[in-house]
Amino acid sequence: MTEKLPSSIPLTQRAVIFKKHSGKLELKSIEVQSPKANELLINVKFSGVCHSDLHAWKGDWPTKTKLPLVGGHEGAGIVVAMGASVRGWKIGDYAGIKWLNSCCMSCEQCELSNEPNCAYADISGFTRDGSFQQYATADAVQAARIPPGTNLAEVSPVLCAGITVFKALKTANLTAGNWVAISGACGGLGSMAIQYAKAMGYSVVGIDSGAEKEHLFNDLGGDVFLDFSKSENLVPEVVSATGGGGGAHGVLNLSASENAINTSVRFCRANGVIVLVGIPSGATCVSEVFDHVVKSIKIVGSSVGNRADTREALDFYSRGLIRPAIKVAGLSQVPQIFKKMDNGEIVGRCVVNTGE
Amino acid sequence: MTEKLPSSIPLTQRAVIFKKHSGKLELKSIEVQSPKANELLINVKFSGVCHSDLHAWKGDWPTKTKLPLVGGHEGAGIVVAMGASVRGWKIGDYAGIKWLNSCCMSCEQCELSNEPNCAYADISGFTRDGSFQQYATADAVQAARIPPGTNLAEVSPVLCAGITVFKALKTANLTAGNWVAISGACGGLGSMAIQYAKAMGYSVVGIDSGAEKEHLFNDLGGDVFLDFSKSENLVPEVVSATGGGGGAHGVLNLSASENAINTSVRFCRANGVIVLVGIPSGATCVSEVFDHVVKSIKIVGSSVGNRADTREALDFYSRGLIRPAIKVAGLSQVPQIFKKMDNGEIVGRCVVNTGE
Amino acid sequence: MTEKLPSSIPLTQRAVIFKKHSGKLELKSIEVQSPKANELLINVKFSGVCHSDLHAWKGDWPTKTKLPLVGGHEGAGIVVAMGASVRGWKIGDYAGIKWLNSCCMSCEQCELSNEPNCAYADISGFTRDGSFQQYATADAVQAARIPPGTNLAEVSPVLCAGITVFKALKTANLTAGNWVAISGACGGLGSMAIQYAKAMGYSVVGIDSGAEKEHLFNDLGGDVFLDFSKSENLVPEVVSATGGGGGAHGVLNLSASENAINTSVRFCRANGVIVLVGIPSGATCVSEVFDHVVKSIKIVGSSVGNRADTREALDFYSRGLIRPAIKVAGLSQVPQIFKKMDNGEIVGRCVVNTGE
Amino acid sequence: MTEKLPSSIPLTQRAVIFKKHSGKLELKSIEVQSPKANELLINVKFSGVCHSDLHAWKGDWPTKTKLPLVGGHEGAGIVVAMGASVRGWKIGDYAGIKWLNSCCMSCEQCELSNEPNCAYADISGFTRDGSFQQYATADAVQAARIPPGTNLAEVSPVLCAGITVFKALKTANLTAGNWVAISGACGGLGSMAIQYAKAMGYSVVGIDSGAEKEHLFNDLGGDVFLDFSKSENLVPEVVSATGGGGGAHGVLNLSASENAINTSVRFCRANGVIVLVGIPSGATCVSEVFDHVVKSIKIVGSSVGNRADTREALDFYSRGLIRPAIKVAGLSQVPQIFKKMDNGEIVGRCVVNTGE
Repeated sequence: MTEKLPSSIPLTQRAVIFKKHSGKLELKSIEVQSPKANELLINVKFSGVCHSDLHAWKGDWPTKTKLPLVGGHEGAGIVVAMGASVRGWKIGDYAGIKWLNSCCMSCEQCELSNEPNCAYADISGFTRDGSFQQYATADAVQAARIPPGTNLAEVSPVLCAGITVFKALKTANLTAGNWVAISGACGGLGSMAIQYAKAMGYSVVGIDSGAEKEHLFNDLGGDVFLDFSKSENLVPEVVSATGGGGGAHGVLNLSASENAINTSVRFCRANGVIVLVGIPSGATCVSEVFDHVVKSIKIVGSSVGNRADTREALDFYSRGLIRPAIKVAGLSQVPQIFKKMDNGEIVGRCVVNTGE
Repeated sequence: MTEKLPSSIPLTQRAVIFKKHSGKLELKSIEVQSPKANELLINVKFSGVCHSDLHAWKGDWPTKTKLPLVGGHEGAGIVVAMGASVRGWKIGDYAGIKWLNSCCMSCEQCELSNEPNCAYADISGFTRDGSFQQYATADAVQAARIPPGTNLAEVSPVLCAGITVFKALKTANLTAGNWVAISGACGGLGSMAIQYAKAMGYSVVGIDSGAEKEHLFNDLGGDVFLDFSKSENLVPEVVSATGGGGGAHGVLNLSASENAINTSVRFCRANGVIVLVGIPSGATCVSEVFDHVVKSIKIVGSSVGNRADTREALDFYSRGLIRPAIKVAGLSQVPQIFKKMDNGEIVGRCVVNTGE
Repeated sequence: MTEKLPSSIPLTQRAVIFKKHSGKLELKSIEVQSPKANELLINVKFSGVCHSDLHAWKGDWPTKTKLPLVGGHEGAGIVVAMGASVRGWKIGDYAGIKWLNSCCMSCEQCELSNEPNCAYADISGFTRDGSFQQYATADAVQAARIPPGTNLAEVSPVLCAGITVFKALKTANLTAGNWVAISGACGGLGSMAIQYAKAMGYSVVGIDSGAEKEHLFNDLGGDVFLDFSKSENLVPEVVSATGGGGGAHGVLNLSASENAINTSVRFCRANGVIVLVGIPSGATCVSEVFDHVVKSIKIVGSSVGNRADTREALDFYSRGLIRPAIKVAGLSQVPQIFKKMDNGEIVGRCVVNTGE
Repeated sequence: MTEKLPSSIPLTQRAVIFKKHSGKLELKSIEVQSPKANELLINVKFSGVCHSDLHAWKGDWPTKTKLPLVGGHEGAGIVVAMGASVRGWKIGDYAGIKWLNSCCMSCEQCELSNEPNCAYADISGFTRDGSFQQYATADAVQAARIPPGTNLAEVSPVLCAGITVFKALKTANLTAGNWVAISGACGGLGSMAIQYAKAMGYSVVGIDSGAEKEHLFNDLGGDVFLDFSKSENLVPEVVSATGGGGGAHGVLNLSASENAINTSVRFCRANGVIVLVGIPSGATCVSEVFDHVVKSIKIVGSSVGNRADTREALDFYSRGLIRPAIKVAGLSQVPQIFKKMDNGEIVGRCVVNTGE
């Protein structure tokens, strides 16, 4: 499949933009930006819609966004222009816009490859305009390299959801064969996490609710599905599903539920690890100190990936191991998608076509 | 210095024992136990008094103790008898009684060298009688090997406090040169942690209160002392003391304060680690999920060490790098020591001489 | 499938035994040993035949064997008796005899879970009689726990070949998605290594020769097969097959060829790892210091696994991810199997039925 | 101590340059280069002289140098100019010129922070002119940040020797308290390695020859010195010096002796690691495959450090833990220094003052 390189760069373009938090999401014509010396200008073809986009719109996370804002940070498109100092890219290359648009590359965190933790990180669709527009800029060092011929609609959720869950699984640092429990197994992140976890050799317990999600879980190769809406007590169920050694070796918290986070401490095996990924607004993570110490468990936060994680996460997709469960809509549908997302009605991942 | 091997094993001995939680601590004559096939009988010369002994007496931890109970799990003494299947020990060897008296050696945790997390762990001074007596038994595989000529009074706190903080520092898995903040820097655990941390190449911020503790901290080679009783806000003070990179690379929570634990999340650097060691009764560890994820920090529990940690922790002592700040009293003084401990009046470590 | 527990333990049994290195391999009647206090007596049903058995017979490794010797260290059978101090086993359990029959459990190596490196290791079919007999003894702590209902013929090669390649892959410590090149991909070890590597999420290049082996490689899910007998220069071929990043991230040397070992240094990617497993008699591993340093590669030896590796390797088999390519023969066929092995004519793994 | 910022940038400067390998080393006047957009122009005050400079001059390593060449890659000086896109530096900052002058920052190795292994690495004093001149250029991202007030003569050897041995020790990945044997303990690299190793908490065996070196070793805090010129067999001596556990946990090969490298395999403890750093021209590293596997040792190459290693290695110096044993000479003395180096007559590190 080959996306078309536009014959010229227009002066204006379609974008979904909002002026204040929780305000109107307008589909408007806005100017196309010029890339700075270190930047690419990318003709975004498709963009995934992530739960973080909803938080950016609501403004309910401690870090503030720019305003007015064009959201979106899962943009897949084609390079149409680039700044003077860009090396290693050419017009027509496929490129991806990620959450981490640029960082300083010279602080202690950047030096250690912890680029997402750079204090000077610039975030697509958050501190700068993102991928809910037809043309967006991205730092050339951080922009994702997408192989020619890739299906840009399908790959777009890999750019945030995929990288994020892959990085979270790497953070868990499990041994192949270990059990990983995924809390929120069948949303946008979870449906990717199941596939990455299986491709990395783990056994997977999925925790979510409803027959549709159970069906998706089984389709994606998960091992044991636990429906929390039907469960009296998840703790013994996870312990039993994972072979009786005291619980899962690793837990991925992808859900937007504070309660799910805090329960997971109890079904994590001794010396196991709980990875926090989902960020319910205002939530706290709570553990009993006694259990935390006696079981010697680890609770670790994981945000998004660095350049290496990006390369690797995309490679799993290219090798056919990850099939994002996408539903494609037009760019104009962003408001409706946000509404469904807020109601927890999304199964899989919504992707918008910027041309529609 | 050489301790005297007794010429015979008496039938009865002196022990500090209690019948119910928070009940009377009696110095009584009780029977000397015979070692089982896999056990050593150790003539305990000295025993450290640990904060966990106070919890065992009070019974305020979720796991229940045996009753009546002889407490103590930092016993240093001489092997006077052994069971039929013991290998690698001989009468007259110096041996130590640790928190972990025995474990199954065949479960998943034991196989992975996580012996303290064995579900079948038998705990000295908790689930079996400990070192507040003249003769105690210990599983030969787990008993600590103490080199001949060692000062048994001084080494005794290494057997729990030393191993515990050494293991906690290993768990933090820092790079030499990193900053570690020690919360509760000058109690029994803390005064050892300062020395281990320096001997392992870390820079140390100590958090505690009072001029006597500050003096001890400086004597033991700590780098920066912060007195929480004089501080308006520890967070910026730790950040500043650790070079401005956002806080300490690692935090050891040795204090018995829930508040100290929860504050430490805020002065831990991105990608840093907080190690929970101290267990305030009923306490919870609380973090904001947003910060936990965005800073990608780790909160990990660490209990006591395994056989390898024991060998290594003792080796630091033998090389002269660790000098426990001990105050020696008679076995009969255990009740008074508990009282002071409960009031937070202990600086350094109390050790009791079982012969006095 | 359930193997039959014998109704009584005979005094004598069938065994393949030799008196001197490279001497006659006799199928004889010998006495059945009694288990010591810490041992199991196992009625061996099936035993894999490993390349190390050939070395034990020839006596061409530096470490000397006992003589006369019953070889074999991949024995799968049923517990029929046990010593007085054995815990956690019962008559009728399925148990496996591994290379590492027992070790001291108290030296530095054992404490660190590096049990195969214990200086006091006792080796089945090498320093003590092994599994080429109907009844063999094994230390209860080290004996492998095989789930009830397991196919004992098929599982037997997991007990050495499986554990060994699984441990070698763990030693390589690769990231899921990395490329691993397996030198000697289709012998007894290699055919297992392909399957473990795929189940652990790696991409696999197999190096071996001949159409039959290429066919087996593809059947087992390997990614790229390179036939060294048809190749002019394996180095650029591996580099090309592994995506152009300079070679494989990891190399497993399972072949009995010194040349294969030394070539692999050149097709290993910068910061990659070469794991030595196969031990050609008298062979040396040679690298150019300049390349070794400039590419920062690692060459690491891996022998067999510890108790945790054993549990995990067997679990992959139990989950249906590993299908040893076995050919079953009678115990009396050991001499013929050795001959074929010496000629490099074995594809997959030979297993002998001790009852035939 | 504060070095003087020049009031203007001259058009020409003093440099030591050679036209062909092993050819005349001329002290000449050459042009001062202008920095490119991404570069700093540094007024080099002092430059260490490294063994690699000798190899660059001789041309006896496989990778070829530029010609004519100004050598040197341990240059400490002051920023006097910078290119248009440089961020985070200002005129007057102290800056260091390292072996790794620049790399691509976008290949797999760079993404993983393995910058020294970048295929596009540009090397000071090797593939581009280095620090044996008064003014040299350096990529701003890779240039070392040296705190104001630093003694530039003394810090200069940290920029290669210091970083290199620090990285090698990090590569060894030992536990504090472990034994490290340093082969070539008292040359330019070794005298730094002793100090880094002690500051990182290791016990150190030094292997070198002669009373002067033994004296230096003891002065720098080493634990046990072994004089290879007086030894009959180093292997048992190292094993004995390191506590009888089978040898050193880690070995650093800093010497220029192939024999030293190959002997070290025999005095490395099971599961230990040998780090190759020194590169004798044309040398090979040879191990017996049997021992390599049975002892499960690791032989790993380590070249220079990345940005994080640079920051950390300099921080040890700033904290007063590393005192390079330097002898300062004039820039004109480079030929004489090379001669002595070639004869193995250098103890500690020679540093040249570019103004003399």
